[in-house]
Amino acid sequence: MSVSWSDRFEEHLEDAVLAHRGSSIVADLLSYHFGYGAYGPARRGKRLRPTLVVIAAQTEGCEIEAALDAAVAIEMVHNYSLIHDDIEDRDELRHGRPTLWARSGVPQALNAGDALCALAFLALANAGAHHTPGRVVRMIHALHRAHLTMCDGQSLDLQFEREAHVDLAAYTAMIAGKTAAIFAAAGELGALCAGADDAVASYRALGSAYGLAFQIADDVHGIWADEDATGKQRGVDIARRKWTYPVAWALSGPASAARTVVAEAYGRGEPLDRAEVDRVVDALDGLGAREAARRASAEHLALIERHPKGGVRDFLLRGDSPA
Amino acid sequence: MSVSWSDRFEEHLEDAVLAHRGSSIVADLLSYHFGYGAYGPARRGKRLRPTLVVIAAQTEGCEIEAALDAAVAIEMVHNYSLIHDDIEDRDELRHGRPTLWARSGVPQALNAGDALCALAFLALANAGAHHTPGRVVRMIHALHRAHLTMCDGQSLDLQFEREAHVDLAAYTAMIAGKTAAIFAAAGELGALCAGADDAVASYRALGSAYGLAFQIADDVHGIWADEDATGKQRGVDIARRKWTYPVAWALSGPASAARTVVAEAYGRGEPLDRAEVDRVVDALDGLGAREAARRASAEHLALIERHPKGGVRDFLLRGDSPA
Repeated sequence: MSVSWSDRFEEHLEDAVLAHRGSSIVADLLSYHFGYGAYGPARRGKRLRPTLVVIAAQTEGCEIEAALDAAVAIEMVHNYSLIHDDIEDRDELRHGRPTLWARSGVPQALNAGDALCALAFLALANAGAHHTPGRVVRMIHALHRAHLTMCDGQSLDLQFEREAHVDLAAYTAMIAGKTAAIFAAAGELGALCAGADDAVASYRALGSAYGLAFQIADDVHGIWADEDATGKQRGVDIARRKWTYPVAWALSGPASAARTVVAEAYGRGEPLDRAEVDRVVDALDGLGAREAARRASAEHLALIERHPKGGVRDFLLRGDSPA
Repeated sequence: MSVSWSDRFEEHLEDAVLAHRGSSIVADLLSYHFGYGAYGPARRGKRLRPTLVVIAAQTEGCEIEAALDAAVAIEMVHNYSLIHDDIEDRDELRHGRPTLWARSGVPQALNAGDALCALAFLALANAGAHHTPGRVVRMIHALHRAHLTMCDGQSLDLQFEREAHVDLAAYTAMIAGKTAAIFAAAGELGALCAGADDAVASYRALGSAYGLAFQIADDVHGIWADEDATGKQRGVDIARRKWTYPVAWALSGPASAARTVVAEAYGRGEPLDRAEVDRVVDALDGLGAREAARRASAEHLALIERHPKGGVRDFLLRGDSPA
């Protein structure tokens, strides 16, 4: 079945996006975003969130087919948030292509994101073909609660852009909302698909831990990415003065010359030039911020190591796909 | 009970908005939008959509209490759409106050709108206290379908800004989505609250007809508003080159000097100055566009006149509130 999970999911997602026939403008924008039709090939990405839904469901004894609607819904909510985040952050490129607002303007892109949110929950409502209405309501509630928590986290992230100092607790609260809530919902939805009510809370915690570990690893990547391997420039998140784990950690430590370099660069409230970026990255290196971030990520992953079910562990820790 | 319906609704809505404790930034923005707390007094507006939910529910034998969650949800979806529309249209004022994006910037306002969307559906999921899960799923499905159709209509409205000509059919398709879909859902949700499954389609049609009539009347108001009564300037929607029923109707008619005045003014693709606005309004007057709009509005209302239930008719045609 290793051939079919990913293909079945991609097919199901594409069907759910292309099923929309209401406005050819909205349909065209969403096709562009996902890379469908004339905009192909589809940009599949890692599909971590829907894979977690399916792995959790399967681990608890649910057929993949009965988890597909939830998997599709969570990937659509994630993509709706990407479309809006790109507007909010004024990001003009995503995976080397112009973002939706950069291509089609803020108004149409914003509106297409809203439409994708609606499509996500219409897809989830389809889960009624496999599940009782009571279970569908619980899934919709869980995903909208994560949707709300994600917005809470995003509001903090936007606020941080104006802050001269963000401490580690505030940073963690931000990523718990912005990134981890949707992973938590992925675990929760998987358990709900399987009818494993007693396991819902543990899968939610598992998904949240994975989301936190994922975000911190992504933060490290945004500062110390290997230029040759990824094409991403070293320090790209520093240049934008983005608040990430290594920076919040460094500024939460004892006073030192290296800490002052970071504090002054972030305290000025302006983008940094190349030389400043290098000074900040060197300072973070000197403070051991990269190792601190790796330790924090590993602590979150330790919760997953202790999870009793092998399939979920194997996916979350080693990236194995559903069987 | 005439004291309590409106008060109970306002209380329920305020509770649902203020219940959100996730991010003080989001909570503050939503309090500002609704005029709660330090931002009071609350801006109640006409509450047409939730009133239709409750009237339809009550007419079909449902207690008001059991319709409140649906009424609150629909008002929240409407307000979420206003927050996003104001960003998309770059409108800086709403009812004399700065709009959310004008006050707090596009990123935070966009994100607060998203949060309000989530809150709306979390409120609707609460309807499970009064209704079976199967009924709650149908309500959520109906409201997200209207949400999607609303986005479809909005995409057309945004597109129209770039068009040199919009015909009456395209205009009607736009308002059927942008305005009428949510009124249709209001009727539908009311009938669903009452368990009146056989009446759902007729209440949906009724709500849609009311929404179309409402929008066309609003279009007339945006051109011929009485300046003394409303403070709105004559021709305000003409100055912005907004496509409305009277304009689309005028351009769909036979060639004439007056029609050419309107066509040329709208065909230029730029905002109009005061003298041009006056010329266009005079031309619309000469063509009888105001009466044509009133006839179109009346045609939609005729469907409501034929509705067998008096309470719904009385509200939609004369503005009577729930008893």
